[in-house]
Amino acid sequence: MTVTDRAAELDAADPLAHLRAEFVGAESPLVYFDGNSLGRPLRATRQRLGEFVEEEWGGRLIRGWDERWFEQPLTLGDELGRVVLGAAPGQTFVGDSTTVLLYKLGRAAVDAQPGRHEIVLDRDNFPTDRYVMEGIGRDSGLSIRWIDVDTSAGVTAEQLAEAVSERTALVVLSQVAYRSGHLCDAPELTRIAHDAGALVLWDLCHSVGSVPVALDDWGADLAVGCTYKYLNGGPGSPAFGYVARRHLNTLTQPIQGWMGHADPFLMGPGYRPAPSIRRFISGTPPILGMLAMQDMLGLIDDAGIDAVRTKSLALTSYAVELADELLSPLGVELASPRDPAARGGHITLNHPRMSEVTGALWQRDVIPDYRDPHGLRIGLSPLSTSFEEVRRGLLAVRDELV
Amino acid sequence: MTVTDRAAELDAADPLAHLRAEFVGAESPLVYFDGNSLGRPLRATRQRLGEFVEEEWGGRLIRGWDERWFEQPLTLGDELGRVVLGAAPGQTFVGDSTTVLLYKLGRAAVDAQPGRHEIVLDRDNFPTDRYVMEGIGRDSGLSIRWIDVDTSAGVTAEQLAEAVSERTALVVLSQVAYRSGHLCDAPELTRIAHDAGALVLWDLCHSVGSVPVALDDWGADLAVGCTYKYLNGGPGSPAFGYVARRHLNTLTQPIQGWMGHADPFLMGPGYRPAPSIRRFISGTPPILGMLAMQDMLGLIDDAGIDAVRTKSLALTSYAVELADELLSPLGVELASPRDPAARGGHITLNHPRMSEVTGALWQRDVIPDYRDPHGLRIGLSPLSTSFEEVRRGLLAVRDELV
Repeated sequence: MTVTDRAAELDAADPLAHLRAEFVGAESPLVYFDGNSLGRPLRATRQRLGEFVEEEWGGRLIRGWDERWFEQPLTLGDELGRVVLGAAPGQTFVGDSTTVLLYKLGRAAVDAQPGRHEIVLDRDNFPTDRYVMEGIGRDSGLSIRWIDVDTSAGVTAEQLAEAVSERTALVVLSQVAYRSGHLCDAPELTRIAHDAGALVLWDLCHSVGSVPVALDDWGADLAVGCTYKYLNGGPGSPAFGYVARRHLNTLTQPIQGWMGHADPFLMGPGYRPAPSIRRFISGTPPILGMLAMQDMLGLIDDAGIDAVRTKSLALTSYAVELADELLSPLGVELASPRDPAARGGHITLNHPRMSEVTGALWQRDVIPDYRDPHGLRIGLSPLSTSFEEVRRGLLAVRDELV
Repeated sequence: MTVTDRAAELDAADPLAHLRAEFVGAESPLVYFDGNSLGRPLRATRQRLGEFVEEEWGGRLIRGWDERWFEQPLTLGDELGRVVLGAAPGQTFVGDSTTVLLYKLGRAAVDAQPGRHEIVLDRDNFPTDRYVMEGIGRDSGLSIRWIDVDTSAGVTAEQLAEAVSERTALVVLSQVAYRSGHLCDAPELTRIAHDAGALVLWDLCHSVGSVPVALDDWGADLAVGCTYKYLNGGPGSPAFGYVARRHLNTLTQPIQGWMGHADPFLMGPGYRPAPSIRRFISGTPPILGMLAMQDMLGLIDDAGIDAVRTKSLALTSYAVELADELLSPLGVELASPRDPAARGGHITLNHPRMSEVTGALWQRDVIPDYRDPHGLRIGLSPLSTSFEEVRRGLLAVRDELV
């Protein structure tokens, strides 16, 4: 049997295969390799939004705030903590965008350590992480200590150990790299940063929902992540933030709004931060944007994040096998770790013509992403992607390259 | 005819009365006096959200960003500018929460004027405005110059003229006060601030959609506002920000994310702010939260903001008449301007027992708001409120007070 023939067998053996039917568009012939950028909606989402409009918003009106919404950023945060973050209750909240949360938590970290003047960051981190930290550095008088990474190896323990020192206030790292898909050793890197007395802010955008995360076990200080990728919250659904319990009474964030006040409805003079994770909330929480992700969290909870990871590894491994057989003879190179244990939920394939190939694939309803300089990024959202879809997609890439 | 008898006549003469049927729950006997805090959903909203999930998100998937969503914060901003803000295109964007936008635009203003060390603010401004500016002041070394206001008169020209000076970097004012409903003279106050060389940031949360706004004509520098009150965007729908064209190349904001970059998809090193209003965007825009307000904007556009204001004045005037007749004999005092031209879309009625009365009213499906120290706040969202509703609500207040 050739590699391409194995898709049907892999789908038949997949214990999570039946969940694919839960997503809008599962029956369509379209090949979707970008669920790591914007996850498909669940079929349940339309109904949930409709009921929310009629019954909760339209029926309860302003009373909804007292009855549920005021606590929603924290109750949903706890649910994220339990199902996908490995975080005990009271440390996670939902709101704002990842960018705004990087700013708030980044500022919280550097403001708490006035004697330390460096932020450590790798040059391959997602642009918004780099831009936000450069802005904080400029405004607060810190410099960036850059780590140059080999994208197939990610940030190594040796590199981080060399970069951190008694000057380091904060280390900002992505668990999974947005281009290569490299999955780093988060507990080890956290330990190294802590040995230098620095705080660590984990960006989980490209991992949460596809890779197990254990913030409490890692000893992480801070984390942020987005919910529209593997958590299927919809375009621009709000981000989440995590602040370890030990920091909740000492760290404060700069956008001090009424919803983070110890007594929001007192509306009195002077801001007093809530003595809890609530202090990291600023304005009125985006309730509508918190709805869709709840069904996806339920699905992941039922499947179990370890089973999700097992399927994710099988999907990326199959994509690598297909690429080896079909595409490497055409000059395509794997720009992601070959070791499955060092990979998140996507792989990137390099070829000088990939920009043009991406355009051609979109024309034929095969939807990967493209990342400079010449990477075709193939995201395989575990619960909504079949092996057959991987097969068809990789065959289409071959067709466009020959 | 007594005042209470006039409701039916007023409804019959209301040229916008038919629009009330467009809202979810219009047929219910519930009296809703909090549309100025959370507007009712339109009946069209359920359908719009459902179609979005199935067709746009579920059907176009990641392609939706190229096709529409990437520009959505700006196209919707322009639409807000045209219909309710009096702002020419290219100056308004949608995103974040009001609190976050107050921070971003407040910082933009003070960062641009390093030689000025005061922010002028009134003590009756909404808490989040005060808290955010106190935070900016502390972080950036500015002090707050407070204006004490008589809530029935709002911030007067004389008060502002006395407060501003060559030390003033920024004046932050609400067009309509959140408790009293006082509507201030925005063009005059803007002129006074400008005469002192200060910038003005208008908070339009409690006015936009019910009171005509003319940011360009006022010569406003900056503005923010929320979309879940009179714009019916749903709980926590995103805010909007306005930056006058003349400032677009000089002001920058501190949360420099990829979506505000001159070339977001280059993902290169170093942040370079877009040479347009886009520079005030930080993270991925909350697309789902931008949907519901579009139908409301259409409704306001069809009716015309001047007709909306005319009905709003008729509603608050009728509520004042009813309060005079039914409630003032019971010791209730109007805590809002008696002059209709000095009022926004809500009024506040003071009585020592109003906290308890509010609870009792909620029990009988009459839903006003309560604001310390002892104000019953009656918000009359113009297109979703009938005169009959006002009559029934004020009668219920009387019943609870006798």
